[in-house]
Amino acid sequence: MTDGLEILPVRGIGHIVAGDDLVELIAAAAPWIADGDVLVVTSKIVSKAEGRLVEVPADGEARDDARREVLASETARVVARRGPTTIVQTHHGFVMAAAGIDASNVDKTHLVLLPADPDTSARQLRAGFRARGLDVGVIVSDTMGRAWRNGLTDVALGAAGIEPIRDHRGETDPYGNELEITQMAVIDELAAAGELVKGKCDQVPVAVVRGYPRSGIRDSSDGAAVLLRDAASDMFSLGTAEARALGLREAAQLPDNALPGLPIDPAALERAAAAVADALSPATTVTPAEAITGSGATAALHLTTRDMTPIGLMRLGADAHRLRAALAAESIVTLSLPHDDGIRLELSGH
Amino acid sequence: MTDGLEILPVRGIGHIVAGDDLVELIAAAAPWIADGDVLVVTSKIVSKAEGRLVEVPADGEARDDARREVLASETARVVARRGPTTIVQTHHGFVMAAAGIDASNVDKTHLVLLPADPDTSARQLRAGFRARGLDVGVIVSDTMGRAWRNGLTDVALGAAGIEPIRDHRGETDPYGNELEITQMAVIDELAAAGELVKGKCDQVPVAVVRGYPRSGIRDSSDGAAVLLRDAASDMFSLGTAEARALGLREAAQLPDNALPGLPIDPAALERAAAAVADALSPATTVTPAEAITGSGATAALHLTTRDMTPIGLMRLGADAHRLRAALAAESIVTLSLPHDDGIRLELSGH
Repeated sequence: MTDGLEILPVRGIGHIVAGDDLVELIAAAAPWIADGDVLVVTSKIVSKAEGRLVEVPADGEARDDARREVLASETARVVARRGPTTIVQTHHGFVMAAAGIDASNVDKTHLVLLPADPDTSARQLRAGFRARGLDVGVIVSDTMGRAWRNGLTDVALGAAGIEPIRDHRGETDPYGNELEITQMAVIDELAAAGELVKGKCDQVPVAVVRGYPRSGIRDSSDGAAVLLRDAASDMFSLGTAEARALGLREAAQLPDNALPGLPIDPAALERAAAAVADALSPATTVTPAEAITGSGATAALHLTTRDMTPIGLMRLGADAHRLRAALAAESIVTLSLPHDDGIRLELSGH
Repeated sequence: MTDGLEILPVRGIGHIVAGDDLVELIAAAAPWIADGDVLVVTSKIVSKAEGRLVEVPADGEARDDARREVLASETARVVARRGPTTIVQTHHGFVMAAAGIDASNVDKTHLVLLPADPDTSARQLRAGFRARGLDVGVIVSDTMGRAWRNGLTDVALGAAGIEPIRDHRGETDPYGNELEITQMAVIDELAAAGELVKGKCDQVPVAVVRGYPRSGIRDSSDGAAVLLRDAASDMFSLGTAEARALGLREAAQLPDNALPGLPIDPAALERAAAAVADALSPATTVTPAEAITGSGATAALHLTTRDMTPIGLMRLGADAHRLRAALAAESIVTLSLPHDDGIRLELSGH
């Protein structure tokens, strides 16, 4: 591995305005930057140099309105809301509170947006240093919250010239076990290390990591975008309250679908029956039945009631829907077939 | 702030067995450790020294069974499951895949559990160095996955003698704005920085961070437990699929509750009506109604059908339940009152 790292602050960069040449400013402030260094650059100064600012009223309701509007335009989808906090996925794919829009370290009439494409920003900075004869890795970093843990840490929004992931696949430990933990997000760890020397209002927007293995620094590296997990493959793509509400809405909308004909896990069927047992009317009886040939279903249930009054029949209808929701929670698809003396549910796996 | 940090690997510690004196071993391997250093110690060696090992069969189904059993005993609650991955909250409160149980860097007949109380472990290590005349901060670290981002990073499971959070509350930036980002989880950033020099199978289980501000190192510091977010205050306390299934089960179980009498957001009512519009039978009509005085409800809806056959009445019952689920998704509580010619839903906020 390495003999150790140094994490060095770069001071004296000063205020950044749109059009500033960051490479020139960083190189002037830190003429000691050397081949093989990794530069961790706060996204804020990248945004400012790139003119990613939006004018907003300095205060009052007009400011709040403008801020909401900017948030909406930076948002690809809302992930979770609680009180004043809105966590969204940005158009880049980052999951961040308020889409990373920031009102600090800028005058009160502007908001700072994230760089339009942080990987491109990082590549341009790397190319700028390369033009000065320096081969450096570049990370564009920002501060993010996390699920499950209090406090914030810095992570990489963009990267160039440095492998984002250190992959241990195929390595074995001294006991001959293949490693279970394989993919370390090293650019996030480098961004975190850089934050430790940067501070929030000290005009230290750049840290230099010295001593990182040269094997990790190369032109062909992926950008930080490889760390983005899309919603489909993310087990936490929605807040818990939002996903719970989604389940309730799905229960409201349960379609009478053509059935896919996949087998049902008997344990899942039992769990669904148990979940709903106490919620059904005492007049309702659920009995297993044969699936109708050709329906695609692999099992069926029959619901009847001993209360055949209008009220009893309405209750039976509601009970069938309760059972359908409980089955849907277990990924069992249902087709509801009411007839004069009860309701038949055709069931199938999903 | 700081003039920079050094992150130094500690080599030559060798294999650790239960009862080993980690302080002695670390001090012998790194006699250069000095006052004010922060030691980042891989939890694996802490667990081994503390004898947190479980014997398991070396292979086969018996091993899988034993592993499942160990996981269950380390689990306080299951957070999310997908395929072979189980993410749980441990009894300590950590949210980790497989409860942090590890089969690497140990012989094939043992699994390594997390330390029983990593903050206590860190305090004991700090006290051990103190007894040798050295005032060091100690972090016990482990590798964790995250929501939303690929790859893993190291974080702090335990800490002693170092403030876990750097709090910027009350600070203002050079533009006079109060800082919005206030609480940095610095021990997680230090753990991440340490990982960069440790590697996974290189027998470098300890890193030393030198140059961290002395103001952050003090006896009275909180442990890493302050970074734990409990399920109630966590917006991501459950996986999306699990929370969605929870919503579906809640729809199955919707109770006819006494109503709390809280006001209803008209926009929420409209959203619920819109969500269910396409799912209701064409024979069903929903009309606003006055809440029954004294019921506690703040609004009511009346559902009727022009199909008063048994099948039509069952459909009306199911439709009322669909609407109740859609209202529940908007946090509107309902009481269902079926009568001979329709169903009355008394509504209330939550």
